Amino acid sequence: MARVTITEIARRAGVSKGAVSYALNGQPGVSASTRARVLRVAAELDWVPNSAARMLSGARTDTIGLVLARGATREPSVLEFVAGMETVLARHAQVLLLRMASGVDEEVAGYRKWASERRVDAVVVVEVLVDDPRVALLGSLDLPALVAGDPGLAGGLAAVGVDDGAGVTALVEHLVGRGHRTVGWVSGPAHLGRVHVRERAFAAAEGIAVRQHATDLTGGAVDAATRELLGGDDRPTAIVYDGGPAGVAGLSAIGRLGLRVPDDVAVVVWGDSAVCGVTEPALTAVGCDVAAYGAAVGEGVLGLVGGRLRGGMMGAVPTLRVRDSS
Amino acid sequence: MARVTITEIARRAGVSKGAVSYALNGQPGVSASTRARVLRVAAELDWVPNSAARMLSGARTDTIGLVLARGATREPSVLEFVAGMETVLARHAQVLLLRMASGVDEEVAGYRKWASERRVDAVVVVEVLVDDPRVALLGSLDLPALVAGDPGLAGGLAAVGVDDGAGVTALVEHLVGRGHRTVGWVSGPAHLGRVHVRERAFAAAEGIAVRQHATDLTGGAVDAATRELLGGDDRPTAIVYDGGPAGVAGLSAIGRLGLRVPDDVAVVVWGDSAVCGVTEPALTAVGCDVAAYGAAVGEGVLGLVGGRLRGGMMGAVPTLRVRDSS
Repeated sequence: MARVTITEIARRAGVSKGAVSYALNGQPGVSASTRARVLRVAAELDWVPNSAARMLSGARTDTIGLVLARGATREPSVLEFVAGMETVLARHAQVLLLRMASGVDEEVAGYRKWASERRVDAVVVVEVLVDDPRVALLGSLDLPALVAGDPGLAGGLAAVGVDDGAGVTALVEHLVGRGHRTVGWVSGPAHLGRVHVRERAFAAAEGIAVRQHATDLTGGAVDAATRELLGGDDRPTAIVYDGGPAGVAGLSAIGRLGLRVPDDVAVVVWGDSAVCGVTEPALTAVGCDVAAYGAAVGEGVLGLVGGRLRGGMMGAVPTLRVRDSS
Repeated sequence: MARVTITEIARRAGVSKGAVSYALNGQPGVSASTRARVLRVAAELDWVPNSAARMLSGARTDTIGLVLARGATREPSVLEFVAGMETVLARHAQVLLLRMASGVDEEVAGYRKWASERRVDAVVVVEVLVDDPRVALLGSLDLPALVAGDPGLAGGLAAVGVDDGAGVTALVEHLVGRGHRTVGWVSGPAHLGRVHVRERAFAAAEGIAVRQHATDLTGGAVDAATRELLGGDDRPTAIVYDGGPAGVAGLSAIGRLGLRVPDDVAVVVWGDSAVCGVTEPALTAVGCDVAAYGAAVGEGVLGLVGGRLRGGMMGAVPTLRVRDSS
């Protein structure tokens, strides 16, 4: 299948390449008869409107940019999120440009580059932080940006978030209903937006005291936090772990202390994943449909490009899946 | 930062947009003096060569395409692979276009579209199957393709694989050295290239008999396969599970049968990941540095585009990490 180029159309129509470009992109600069001739030749040659021509014409790139932090690659749900988002983009004939960045500086440089090269119509920012420097930069850059995170942390940028407050409410209701009054929480780093949002929600919850240990969620850190939580006299009767791997590490740590789950300590995971269903005992978990959330973000960024979305909204609500560990 | 467009350069230089395009792309069609004037104006305006202009000029798109199957999104290592690949692409100022596909037909349609729109310089094909229809199609399409998988399954396309044969050798040596003669294997689907390659390697291994149960690796399937393997009289003394979540499910299933790991049954995971280090007991695993493999694939596809790579090579060698489960 040979590609039909603008050069080829120009040759057959007997006009300049510039004239072909004007004609195909519906711009002024060519006569009606030339435009008709160019369009007829293009149709005869079975020409596919190509992305380069559309871009040069100043129209959209039909491309959305996404930068992921390298650290996120150990989080299985990230790819589910991307898949959900891309499904929506593909349905609207948009493509997804993906970059990985080692830090905020590299990410910011990437946004500047995309903006100057007109590579993308908009970007989606994930894993938003408390006082996120990317939010400040993107507010000043000529590049539409959607924050996939809590609208309260988006600094006025458009945002599609997960209603983690509702998830905390469901979780607290479950734990209080089973008699828990003091709960441990082995969380991810405190500067992560989604940790911060839950911290506030836990603080506002009634009838329960939450002792948070913010960690990097590695096996050693989870083990140490679990020992610390369960070592004292007034130990919590339940522990929440951020993510399936941390939940597995927590089960191991509790077992090594000679305690049983759920009889001595109940365990709940924040962020449901396949592994939660196959541990012994299986892990109760809070989670949302990550692919559906990604799809909501995809709709959001298309709405932003199309001028239909401003401000923030929630794209998913976490629910509780009770298994054997609580 | 306002974007400098070809229209703007044309206006200031007093020439047509077509003339600007010829001048900036080093094509014939403009006089030397016009070319010099255009280049001077472009420099004055701090013009950034934009991807659209490069594409229209028929040069490279500086873009590599990757299609992932939606099913792959539950595999944590996929994103690590993508991250490794993108690191290399970014270092060479190439970008990564990502699509998700629900099946081979959708994936093939995506390749055709990219080829006709000149969206990408080349594509990387992952998760290659036995008798993969994508390999046949890409051989006939005007789109350079690199298979990230065993060269023996690439049908003559360029390929960068993982030396799973070497991984099997290391694993068999470990198991035979600890006295195992009959080993169970709860594997992924048999039509996956990487399962097929190991199947042949296990069959060729001396001193050990391997009983394979090919499954979809869900918790229920892993549980059923484990029961079947351990239910008979001549039960295997070790079981290999494909992937961390399957290993966790295997530990649970063995525990429910009242057997201990590693005393009654040794357990090994194929595909090391964070969860393997935090189970009780921690899981011995075979695995390669997935990000480094991704980087090798990134180098491979750039070599393909640059005309430096033909045929197949190995980009990573799995090694054995002995923990407490064997």
